[in-house]
Amino acid sequence: MSDVLVVGTVAYDEISTPQSSSHKQLGGSGMHFSIAAAQLSTPHIVSIVGNDFAENDMQYIQSKGINTDGIEIVDGKTFFWKGGYKGAMNEAETQITDLNVLQQFNPILSDTHANIPYVFLANIDPELQLQVLNQLTTPRCIGIDSMNFWIDSKKNSLLEVLKRVTLITLNDGEAKMLTGEYNSIRAAHVIAAYGPSYVIIKKGEHGSFILHNDAVFSLPALPITDVVDPTGAGDSFAGGVMSYIAHRQSDDWETMKNAIAYGTVMASFNVGAFGPHAFDTITDAEIKKRLDALYSLVHFTR
Amino acid sequence: MSDVLVVGTVAYDEISTPQSSSHKQLGGSGMHFSIAAAQLSTPHIVSIVGNDFAENDMQYIQSKGINTDGIEIVDGKTFFWKGGYKGAMNEAETQITDLNVLQQFNPILSDTHANIPYVFLANIDPELQLQVLNQLTTPRCIGIDSMNFWIDSKKNSLLEVLKRVTLITLNDGEAKMLTGEYNSIRAAHVIAAYGPSYVIIKKGEHGSFILHNDAVFSLPALPITDVVDPTGAGDSFAGGVMSYIAHRQSDDWETMKNAIAYGTVMASFNVGAFGPHAFDTITDAEIKKRLDALYSLVHFTR
Repeated sequence: MSDVLVVGTVAYDEISTPQSSSHKQLGGSGMHFSIAAAQLSTPHIVSIVGNDFAENDMQYIQSKGINTDGIEIVDGKTFFWKGGYKGAMNEAETQITDLNVLQQFNPILSDTHANIPYVFLANIDPELQLQVLNQLTTPRCIGIDSMNFWIDSKKNSLLEVLKRVTLITLNDGEAKMLTGEYNSIRAAHVIAAYGPSYVIIKKGEHGSFILHNDAVFSLPALPITDVVDPTGAGDSFAGGVMSYIAHRQSDDWETMKNAIAYGTVMASFNVGAFGPHAFDTITDAEIKKRLDALYSLVHFTR
Repeated sequence: MSDVLVVGTVAYDEISTPQSSSHKQLGGSGMHFSIAAAQLSTPHIVSIVGNDFAENDMQYIQSKGINTDGIEIVDGKTFFWKGGYKGAMNEAETQITDLNVLQQFNPILSDTHANIPYVFLANIDPELQLQVLNQLTTPRCIGIDSMNFWIDSKKNSLLEVLKRVTLITLNDGEAKMLTGEYNSIRAAHVIAAYGPSYVIIKKGEHGSFILHNDAVFSLPALPITDVVDPTGAGDSFAGGVMSYIAHRQSDDWETMKNAIAYGTVMASFNVGAFGPHAFDTITDAEIKKRLDALYSLVHFTR
């Protein structure tokens, strides 16, 4: 399988929803990305955790075919997030964010990691994203994610990152915030002018679209009626997209459409259980079944 | 062309948006429905206006190929709505609603109208919708729309209507309100259990989906960057859907998917100008071009 490098967080999360709540469990953008990406590629996580990080959690990640050589273990506590969802679970409400050892995160890539051509810089400080970009030796497709916090506090660094990447995934609201546009298609055009050849706007339950030059491709989310926990859906989506690109060794427009479809399916699994556990039991047949369902969801014969 | 009967409002609107504002102009659900439906069928409007209703407005409607025999003119003023939109123009804010002669609306169908098999009961009092249903002689496909006001004040009558219709179009929020469900797919299933074979949930800029038995078909909205005025987009959508069904003389599942596509295209025209005027200049070639664009927007080759 092709390698995909992801630089992001490995965390502990504690999550409550209207129906249920989780114990402290595996979370983080790098983890959610990799669990999804591992269906079609070999993800390599570059991250940092504390010495409280349980050995069996590390083994669990490795058991999914994920390379953890780039997860540094240091004295201190692992990044912890406590939050929850109400109503339609469209937006997370944060109760606790303990950055802990994440404050020391200083991603130095091994030669092996620096040589991986398919790279995703998950939602971390844009200055660290730049630091990683400077270490890559043979990049072919670089994707990034970001969030309102960085748009607000480090917009200039983020704009530097955007000059140097192939694709970006952002939430609808973040894209509007970054650009000052009310219309998400306009916002995507403005972001494309900052640099990325592909701009992917994520709209949660409403699906996503991708802009490339003047073309737009859009897919709804799969009609899931039992959303258990949406945490990490965007990261699983990105993991699906990047692993598909790496798998196909291509990022042409037709490949990208299929990558969006694959990412959409990965996100649909993600929301079915707390933490990474929706992926514990899925099979290639189930992935194909959901890809078929997504195709039928939008396909009409004229 | 096939006949479509629509029972709804013909109104005067005064609308402000972040970019602009309109003078008093033609509005109303029956009018917006018919202007779109006239592209592919002969709409017959059953409605009521006051004797302030301008002769040239009536002529304008007729010039679009719309039958106005069922528009009763009575002493008094025409239904008037003043409202506007802010920001992304996702939700209208009402400033003035003057029902005026609409309070006397008592739809009595002519024999010609009672015999039209394709019927849409736009957003009016469910008791009036029931009254119309009782007059239909040979219905083949009956669609309805409703809104939060009727869900709140006349839910039982609305549920009676739902037992007797083929399809319903509702906004996402209205569907959730009607059913008490947070998830719009679940809401659609609950509404289907009330009666309609087809449940169409409209999501504005996020497109729409249709539920039929256990199947869902979903389309995004066309990526329009210049939204001038969204008023009536849902009615234009319904006009497109119903006229397509009447044109094809079928409401099988494949026809319905194309009907949704056609309605999506009609809504995309609607938002391009104030009132009905986006439809003044469109050609069959432009409609085909947008249908092609919509097909490309979601089509991927696996």
